[in-house]
Amino acid sequence: MPNIYDSAYDLEKAIRESEEFKGLKSAFEAVMNDPSAKQMFENFRDTQMQLQEKQMQGQEITEEEVEKARSVVELVQQHEDISKLMEEEQRLNMMINEISQIITKPLEELYGSQEEAAE
Amino acid sequence: MPNIYDSAYDLEKAIRESEEFKGLKSAFEAVMNDPSAKQMFENFRDTQMQLQEKQMQGQEITEEEVEKARSVVELVQQHEDISKLMEEEQRLNMMINEISQIITKPLEELYGSQEEAAE
Ligand SMILES: [Ca+2]
Ligand SMILES: [Ca+2]
Repeated sequence: MPNIYDSAYDLEKAIRESEEFKGLKSAFEAVMNDPSAKQMFENFRDTQMQLQEKQMQGQEITEEEVEKARSVVELVQQHEDISKLMEEEQRLNMMINEISQIITKPLEELYGSQEEAAE
Repeated sequence: MPNIYDSAYDLEKAIRESEEFKGLKSAFEAVMNDPSAKQMFENFRDTQMQLQEKQMQGQEITEEEVEKARSVVELVQQHEDISKLMEEEQRLNMMINEISQIITKPLEELYGSQEEAAE
């Protein structure tokens, strides 16, 4: 029987050594080592988080805020290093989602089977 | 270099064969095979979800709803099979959280290191 923690550490190593993670790392470092790109990226992140928080708390988002968010997105999309970083983040997120779907399959099957039976 | 998907499937197998998952499975089946326990458990789940949804949408939760939720919790805690199931769910959740912390370590280190440097 494979040990859970051994398998988890193997997977962690595989992620760390993957092209996806290495690509994200170098894209991230490129942005972080360029002060104006770093500032622009952090501004983008902050704006996104503020809107998300408001949405989650059911607060109204003003037209001005929507406009501001849109212009920040447009700005970062035009920045080559930042748009590269965002692409790499999305690529890694997709990989993590696939991994997560694989490892939660036993749970999904367990809860899902009862769901089906109940219908 | 270990392959990510091979490692993920190994981990899935390890989870499926773990004492934690087997314990959850048998506790779950015990409740699902007992119609009155099943009904009580589903009622508990529905009540919890409704409250969570309201909370997430920033809606006010009435005193009556808090009281109802409390009495449903008390009821299920007194049911041996359901409280066993809830224990097993918590045990598996803890395991999944630990696994998740292990495999997201590369990401945490990457984003965390910049955080530290920025301070
Ligand atoms: Ca179904
Ligand atoms: Ca910090």
